[in-house]
Amino acid sequence: MSGAVLEAEIESQPAEVEAFLTRHLAPMRALARGLRSCAYALVAARGSSDHAATYARYVLGALGGLPVAPAAPSLHTLYGTPPRMTEALVVGISQSGQSPDVVSVVEAGRRAGRPTVAFTNDLNSPLARAAEHAFDLCTGPERSIAATKTYTTQLAGIALLAAALRGEEAHFEELRRLPEAMARTLSGVAQHARAAGATLADESTLLTLARGVNLCTAEELALKLRELLRVFCQGFSAADFRHGSIALVSRGLPLLLVMPRGVGFADMQALAEAVTERGARLLTIGNEDATLPVAEVPEWLSPLVTVLAGQRLALESARARGLDPDRPVGLAAKVVKTT
Amino acid sequence: MSGAVLEAEIESQPAEVEAFLTRHLAPMRALARGLRSCAYALVAARGSSDHAATYARYVLGALGGLPVAPAAPSLHTLYGTPPRMTEALVVGISQSGQSPDVVSVVEAGRRAGRPTVAFTNDLNSPLARAAEHAFDLCTGPERSIAATKTYTTQLAGIALLAAALRGEEAHFEELRRLPEAMARTLSGVAQHARAAGATLADESTLLTLARGVNLCTAEELALKLRELLRVFCQGFSAADFRHGSIALVSRGLPLLLVMPRGVGFADMQALAEAVTERGARLLTIGNEDATLPVAEVPEWLSPLVTVLAGQRLALESARARGLDPDRPVGLAAKVVKTT
Repeated sequence: MSGAVLEAEIESQPAEVEAFLTRHLAPMRALARGLRSCAYALVAARGSSDHAATYARYVLGALGGLPVAPAAPSLHTLYGTPPRMTEALVVGISQSGQSPDVVSVVEAGRRAGRPTVAFTNDLNSPLARAAEHAFDLCTGPERSIAATKTYTTQLAGIALLAAALRGEEAHFEELRRLPEAMARTLSGVAQHARAAGATLADESTLLTLARGVNLCTAEELALKLRELLRVFCQGFSAADFRHGSIALVSRGLPLLLVMPRGVGFADMQALAEAVTERGARLLTIGNEDATLPVAEVPEWLSPLVTVLAGQRLALESARARGLDPDRPVGLAAKVVKTT
Repeated sequence: MSGAVLEAEIESQPAEVEAFLTRHLAPMRALARGLRSCAYALVAARGSSDHAATYARYVLGALGGLPVAPAAPSLHTLYGTPPRMTEALVVGISQSGQSPDVVSVVEAGRRAGRPTVAFTNDLNSPLARAAEHAFDLCTGPERSIAATKTYTTQLAGIALLAAALRGEEAHFEELRRLPEAMARTLSGVAQHARAAGATLADESTLLTLARGVNLCTAEELALKLRELLRVFCQGFSAADFRHGSIALVSRGLPLLLVMPRGVGFADMQALAEAVTERGARLLTIGNEDATLPVAEVPEWLSPLVTVLAGQRLALESARARGLDPDRPVGLAAKVVKTT
């Protein structure tokens, strides 16, 4: 069947996240002790990695107490006017570790004497060399053009950093139970994804929506669906969506709502009712009643299970369209170097 | 002609920005002296105001030396786990000043003893009352559902704050010359916008792209086009676009490229060539050769002229479709209160 490479990488994620956590838990705990005096985190990333940075906004804020500033890399590379980095923890996230703009932000942090952390899948990359503390993501290279396992291990890295900044044993315990919940999600969701994917085979537009910590999932799944299905798909915060973009919803438009149990659930339910009144067709990722049910995990870790359901949906929907998920049309290069 | 209210507000922007700058220049200069010790800015905003926050990332960074962290309001309102605000300058941006989530971030900053600044069009609003320093945006209410003059005065407020943090006379002088360049842009661009707007009358999807400081323009114009035309339109950073989403480009897809002269221009030209090879149909906002030419201003202020061309394009394109820009389908409320 087409998409065998992508499917294998999707299925490998519980094991990859478990390996990541096992390898890096102790070093991250040790590192975090020296980071607690930082006032905020400055995070440089592009593409899928930028969605991991969105996740950081929530969990570094909620657990670590750190507001997150996404770096504007062009201030370093184009404008030559990098902002000061006083009090910053500087984080670079890049699968390849090659993107010069992400590297330049971490280099500037290093020069400024700030603590620098990198998450990358290549410890020999310029990003890994630039950072004082580099964490490798996976046990092997990612072969698919569409990032999956490097995205979830980036999330695991951010989650681990947040837990280590907080320093409470309960969070580490929740992390330890995560890979099993990821495996349970994948084994349960495949058939649902096949059925739901087939219903999207003729759609050319789609929106993804989430609230709070799962905003990263809405953004990441929108990118996966754009890459693999070539559909127009934008991810929205449910709160921002009400400020204008809800005008887009018309009869029959498919909306993918990421709404696991948690404090954002009631707000997503209210949104689901509002868009149903406008005639939207809903697909949901969430609890046992959802179109794509996922295992229940603590809310701060839910993006690591919700994204699995959506990856599987994108894979199956590409297959239903007769597209090869291992050869996305219009995407040749795995490594994109932007300055 | 339909859209008379929106058109009048679009045309009022040079005068509104001039009035804003005249009213607030001296108070902002005085205020900024006390803000230079902040390590970063934490900015809370939704909808169009969130695009003003994107502008802040570039100009507060480049001129003021401050990295910008967008607040995650749900950490305050949903999760009850607000991050600490040590060393932060806290900024709230909201046309109505009513959105509880934006207000809650500014209130938390005030409680933490941090300097708090608000930009709002209602000095009696909860946001204005929450902030230590509130700046009103326009000389009168905004009647259109689609925000225009409150967006450009928000940009003017951010630009003024950045210039005041920097404290160089040259930037104030550039600001003083801005309203005339905005007026020149509007008077020159109307006929071009009519012609270009007509060519979009049958399109259902569209992408907007920019690099660097004009990323806010790509985001804001995408929202205007969604609201007024009900087209699927997503704004992208040209750098991020290459990391996957470029797969969307196929023959005949219209792309709106925001590319005034400046350091981002060469990169946008390279992107224009790449997407032309894929058969995209380009519309450009930029110098005298562009589809929609704008007056030349210093690059840091260019979002205040480029957006005018796009607002006018959205207005004229809605008219060409037979839509009423003063009554966007599916949008009833001017004030949206999200928590």
